[in-house]
Amino acid sequence: MSAFIPIESLEAGSWLDAVMWNEQGLVPVIAQEVGSKDILMMAWMNRDALLATLRLGEAIYWTRSRQKLLHKGEESGHTQKVKEIRLDCDGDTILLMVEQKDGIACHAGEHSCLFQEWDSISLNWRKISKI
Amino acid sequence: MSAFIPIESLEAGSWLDAVMWNEQGLVPVIAQEVGSKDILMMAWMNRDALLATLRLGEAIYWTRSRQKLLHKGEESGHTQKVKEIRLDCDGDTILLMVEQKDGIACHAGEHSCLFQEWDSISLNWRKISKI
Repeated sequence: MSAFIPIESLEAGSWLDAVMWNEQGLVPVIAQEVGSKDILMMAWMNRDALLATLRLGEAIYWTRSRQKLLHKGEESGHTQKVKEIRLDCDGDTILLMVEQKDGIACHAGEHSCLFQEWDSISLNWRKISKI
Repeated sequence: MSAFIPIESLEAGSWLDAVMWNEQGLVPVIAQEVGSKDILMMAWMNRDALLATLRLGEAIYWTRSRQKLLHKGEESGHTQKVKEIRLDCDGDTILLMVEQKDGIACHAGEHSCLFQEWDSISLNWRKISKI
């Protein structure tokens, strides 16, 4: 979406400071599928992840468990093409509108990571077949 | 959605332990509007907020800035009726599917809190009129 923007212009922009990075320098990121509007997953970004996402045009997150940048789908092939990036009123949440390659966002092989629903009968979470 | 479930049954359930509460005892919560599927906002819950939400059937969050439970809309009237609660694969994100009273979720008077879009022309965030 912005492959031709010089990185110097991006890094110098005040837009990066509009993001309310938390004490770990991270911001939560929601990925929503263009078209279906399904929520696919939530992840985290630091500044480098957001810059890298803008440059590549595909989602690059910061993995807290592995403490490194992760190009989503680099192993599975389930990349996310970023069509829009939004920021919330407080600057502390980012929303990516993405095209999900193969329609599979979850490492468990599901379309969406949000596949457990609270069930008031069993008083527990149950897997839903259809997001 | 669960007004008749005794609180003792809810508190005793293993479902609460399936949620990966962070070091502050919180979990991020995405609110998505039923029907439009618009993402309205992101907030946080602790155990008490989730239990209170289940009992009331309306969204009750934990405000990190004010360090207390907040019944969404208690002042503005813009309450969120909870239709479904989902948990992600890792247990560290909750999704509420809600009916948004008056269609206004944001304290700034907007339908959604996600009303700023990254603009590759100005290299900055700009307000979008239509979510």
